[in-house]
Amino acid sequence: MHTLHGHSFIAGKLTSDSPKTFHAKSPLDGGELLPAFHEASAEDVDHAVRHAEDAFEIYRRIGDVARADLLDAIANKIVGLGDILIQRAHLESGLPLDRITGERARTCGQLKSFAALIREGSWVDARIDHAIPDRSPVPKPDLRRMRVPLGPIVVMGASNFPLAFSTAGGDTASALAAGCTVIMKAHGSHPGTAELVATAIYRALEKCGLPAGVFSMLHGAGSVVAQALVKHPMVRGLGFTGSERAGRALFDAAAARPEPIPVFAEMGSLNPVFLLPSALKERTAAIAAGLKVSFTMGVGQFCTKPGLVLALGGPDFDAFAEQFRTQVQSTMPATMLNRSICDSFFAGVDKVQAVKGVTVLAESNLDADSAKTQGEPVAFTTDAETFILHHELREEIFGPYTLLVSARTVTELIAAARCLAGQLTATIHADGADLADFTDLISVIERRAGRVVLNAFPTGVEVCPSMQHGGPYPASTDARFTSVGSAAIERWVRPASWQGFPQDALPPELRDDNPRGILRTVNGVQTR
Amino acid sequence: MHTLHGHSFIAGKLTSDSPKTFHAKSPLDGGELLPAFHEASAEDVDHAVRHAEDAFEIYRRIGDVARADLLDAIANKIVGLGDILIQRAHLESGLPLDRITGERARTCGQLKSFAALIREGSWVDARIDHAIPDRSPVPKPDLRRMRVPLGPIVVMGASNFPLAFSTAGGDTASALAAGCTVIMKAHGSHPGTAELVATAIYRALEKCGLPAGVFSMLHGAGSVVAQALVKHPMVRGLGFTGSERAGRALFDAAAARPEPIPVFAEMGSLNPVFLLPSALKERTAAIAAGLKVSFTMGVGQFCTKPGLVLALGGPDFDAFAEQFRTQVQSTMPATMLNRSICDSFFAGVDKVQAVKGVTVLAESNLDADSAKTQGEPVAFTTDAETFILHHELREEIFGPYTLLVSARTVTELIAAARCLAGQLTATIHADGADLADFTDLISVIERRAGRVVLNAFPTGVEVCPSMQHGGPYPASTDARFTSVGSAAIERWVRPASWQGFPQDALPPELRDDNPRGILRTVNGVQTR
Repeated sequence: MHTLHGHSFIAGKLTSDSPKTFHAKSPLDGGELLPAFHEASAEDVDHAVRHAEDAFEIYRRIGDVARADLLDAIANKIVGLGDILIQRAHLESGLPLDRITGERARTCGQLKSFAALIREGSWVDARIDHAIPDRSPVPKPDLRRMRVPLGPIVVMGASNFPLAFSTAGGDTASALAAGCTVIMKAHGSHPGTAELVATAIYRALEKCGLPAGVFSMLHGAGSVVAQALVKHPMVRGLGFTGSERAGRALFDAAAARPEPIPVFAEMGSLNPVFLLPSALKERTAAIAAGLKVSFTMGVGQFCTKPGLVLALGGPDFDAFAEQFRTQVQSTMPATMLNRSICDSFFAGVDKVQAVKGVTVLAESNLDADSAKTQGEPVAFTTDAETFILHHELREEIFGPYTLLVSARTVTELIAAARCLAGQLTATIHADGADLADFTDLISVIERRAGRVVLNAFPTGVEVCPSMQHGGPYPASTDARFTSVGSAAIERWVRPASWQGFPQDALPPELRDDNPRGILRTVNGVQTR
Repeated sequence: MHTLHGHSFIAGKLTSDSPKTFHAKSPLDGGELLPAFHEASAEDVDHAVRHAEDAFEIYRRIGDVARADLLDAIANKIVGLGDILIQRAHLESGLPLDRITGERARTCGQLKSFAALIREGSWVDARIDHAIPDRSPVPKPDLRRMRVPLGPIVVMGASNFPLAFSTAGGDTASALAAGCTVIMKAHGSHPGTAELVATAIYRALEKCGLPAGVFSMLHGAGSVVAQALVKHPMVRGLGFTGSERAGRALFDAAAARPEPIPVFAEMGSLNPVFLLPSALKERTAAIAAGLKVSFTMGVGQFCTKPGLVLALGGPDFDAFAEQFRTQVQSTMPATMLNRSICDSFFAGVDKVQAVKGVTVLAESNLDADSAKTQGEPVAFTTDAETFILHHELREEIFGPYTLLVSARTVTELIAAARCLAGQLTATIHADGADLADFTDLISVIERRAGRVVLNAFPTGVEVCPSMQHGGPYPASTDARFTSVGSAAIERWVRPASWQGFPQDALPPELRDDNPRGILRTVNGVQTR
């Protein structure tokens, strides 16, 4: 087996031993995993960022094609790590082997899709306005504009995606695609997985003849390393997926800097599901079964897990609740990502259960095994009045939990929807005249969600140009961007204009002969 | 003459008298202008925002074509105000009549260009990915994405553009184009101009049959009204042009909200001009003349005024400085926008003059007339070592001031460039081999500027798709957006996705038959 060393990587070099170490613990059995991991020091943070800044001066100029080659090479080197990666990620995260294997495919797919995006090249949004020297009253200058990378970017590993949103995940892939260099903060739950993937990235950088400073990976179990990174004056942006509390702390630190920087924190979401009357009546069993799969998938540890279901009360709702109850009861407990997430899940469930007017609808027939860090599917039910009164019912509980809310009237249903904060997703089940009958409700929903799903479930986030994964606060700190899909690259760039430059001093994307053959806006008209 | 009433407009209705009033003062003679203007109360702020929120529910659905009609109507109603508007803006701002007339044309041009942009419709960046129901291992859903408006937006009037960046200026025009409603905070220097333009906006709203709540305009001489607006929970974004201190205060307030909102503050900039050796030698007189025009245009009160000129020292630089000196001496003092700006200008000049190693190169042969709120063109000179040592030489001085800095070596010139913060613009004068010889310097410049200008001057901001007016902090609070040009509309939107919706429940922009004929990305390919 590959021997892990437990050190951070700064521009490809291992950091020296540090007095502070930590071990990953396998949630599968609670056991400590070897080796000890050395936490990065403040000096390590500074070195990593300075290397990223130096490397940026080279990396930002190599062009999209060379960057695409790097992304493809990273994908290949990750696959080249073989089964050792799958095994370690499984041990560290408790996620099943097939899930990890699928996530590796997604990770490589993301890398290759960003490679394809930048190899094609039109993503830079090139705009050219030719000069009109004899325009009256003043001549029009030659002006050209395209996206340029921001600089060194910090990426924080996510607990629930040890591959797809960690070391070489979507944030890293999109930042490298944009021409930024990356300093990665590995998640404390899966440092070994991070080390392996970082090794693959360095192999790819070497293969492509690029400076190792393009990428660094730092360990740190708490928030000290993250805070030092977000405050470093040379850092120009940060990507994060995790809790609202941690995300907001990073956002606040970034906003308080002498020069504020953008923070893209994808945080909590209830992902409400609205069951409209005809759909509830016509598809009772299918919706109950679908909801069960969606809220327990990945042991409820997806940011798009539906944690809230709202409908009008009555016989159809009761029939639905009954079928859903049976579904939940037959669902097994399963290992969660780590002890802290598991404890938070049960604490959250206890908090909801303590609210007067909330009752347990269903729980798994089997009890969770604490030694295996298991969470146990559970569903509660309450009425809209109680839901509106108690803000604690509107806090995300990460894990296999959901809450069914029945409203007495449409007005009450809309009032419940109105008290929702921003959401990554909102789902509507509607048949027949439902959509036409509930336009006011749908309007309230649209204002609050990044993605609105009809007659399906929110889990399963497609990686494609029309995906929006990011919603009004607190779903994310910046609803104007997405963290999934090709548009995720837009987080790491700013537009720059060149005025009056000769052809040979312009980037290729802005030259009249369009050597890259990209789609551009020339004098207001889109053309290749 | 049109009789001004001096009240704020909330959804078209005048606010009642308030105990706090202020008068505009004409900088032309220091005289108080009638009438008294009533400052908006906290209650007025709340009412205006609630009307904007209510109106948003209607306005966001009327479609781009109806919104384009509104923008065109506003432009026509502004022209319809006639000479009274020109006169009042002249009295309040001290800007010459022909400048105000030109600015009115620019204001109407901006409104019409945003109207044209949204009438064409492709700006929504529509993306469609069709379903693949039989995809393995999981079916691909039908997913569609486009830009949607954020909600009620606050626009702050700018001192230096009483028309083009105030009541119906670029921020208002782009926000209305995007589908947002607007609460405008009039600048305390030109409240009468604001009242007149607001009247034109209401006439246009009435003509178009749209709710008056789409627009409100509040008076307030200090920062109280602005702070109340940026903290209001229903406000979803803010646009500002002005000083770094005021812009940062708004940014900080917005970031500290329970739900942070974007603030687009376009703030200070030195707009450095680099004179490279061949250009300095070959075009000494032309550069001296051009620089004089640029730094004194509009009495130096443009955000793109070149306040800093850097070059290698030596005989060519000395010859240039001498020619520039003559140019400055023959330039007349002129009336500045208001007493506060005039006082700040002279205070800033005094601060620079007090720095050891800085000397006066030239000042106007005529003294400024304080009764006419005049500023007097002045240029200083220093060496790069002094410039690098003294951060006060890197603060913007708004007005007809500039500083010439001579470096002994290329290394010193680059070091001086490196200590610059973010800039709206950076200008390079380069002939012959200059560009090739100074690639390191140009690289440093590119990192720091939103727009790089070659062999011209930064004043004169073209309104077109390839304009980038916004640079790294503190040039603006968000370098990823522009406040001038068609892309300014992107500040007021977020992307939203619809998954699995039937054709008749989708916005027209996302329907398969593309009724608006816009350019869209369908299954990854751009097509109409």
